Amino acid sequence: MATEIERRFLVTTPAWRDATTRTRRLVQGYVAREDGVAVRLRLVDDQAWLTIKGPGGLIRPEFEYAVPPADALAMLDTLCAGRRIAKTRHDVPHDGLLWEVDVFEGPLAGLIIAEVELPAPDHSVGVPPWAGREITGDTRYANAVLASAEAPPRG
Amino acid sequence: MATEIERRFLVTTPAWRDATTRTRRLVQGYVAREDGVAVRLRLVDDQAWLTIKGPGGLIRPEFEYAVPPADALAMLDTLCAGRRIAKTRHDVPHDGLLWEVDVFEGPLAGLIIAEVELPAPDHSVGVPPWAGREITGDTRYANAVLASAEAPPRG
Repeated sequence: MATEIERRFLVTTPAWRDATTRTRRLVQGYVAREDGVAVRLRLVDDQAWLTIKGPGGLIRPEFEYAVPPADALAMLDTLCAGRRIAKTRHDVPHDGLLWEVDVFEGPLAGLIIAEVELPAPDHSVGVPPWAGREITGDTRYANAVLASAEAPPRG
Repeated sequence: MATEIERRFLVTTPAWRDATTRTRRLVQGYVAREDGVAVRLRLVDDQAWLTIKGPGGLIRPEFEYAVPPADALAMLDTLCAGRRIAKTRHDVPHDGLLWEVDVFEGPLAGLIIAEVELPAPDHSVGVPPWAGREITGDTRYANAVLASAEAPPRG
């Protein structure tokens, strides 16, 4: 089991764009969600993963397995209707940590979320000037919730 | 994607026992269930699988992946509390098909279900004399439901 320690922030300015080092498009769907556990499929280019995330805010247990992309496409089509998200992810290094800035599409257009993974829960984070309100632990912004709930405030 | 075509029956007599060719104990837990989709972990001896089953009665889409047994044990402990089943499975060949007779344990003790997988939905089935009421498509007897609901009638 891996453990994910992550802080998340809303982004309302474009100031991060110039610092982007890598960009890719993610399509992900939620196979099933129950009691804070989410089973997620993610397609990135021609690779696919099935990820099981346990309940939690800052720290979540996480199990991840590669799956055949054809399986992932079939599951996204047949099992994840109404529970899908598409977004473009940008890597933005800042102050020694790698931030990921997700620009959402479709019904979530206008929503931009920056995430940073930490090596330890109390690891200090130099929050970049373009990061706005912190939403760590705010379940309205969990991807599993965003996939099918009404869109929350963008800022 | 595989498709599972399965008919299921309650069993109320012990007449199948003498025809058993193989027995093993299964421990399984439901990671998450939503809209008829179930994500199941199953441990059989020292092997483990993660299985995603789509909605359906007689015919269900199914995707299955081997996972490390240590991951499966961790997920069963941390993510499947209150959503677990233990049962002993018996292979019982009958009339050219392989029947699986599941004898449930714990809160489901006394419940015995026979299942047979068919090569096609309209494949003829010689129902054995020890098979009782058919429960194909009766969601009360779905393993995903049995794992956490009140036990349904045994006969």
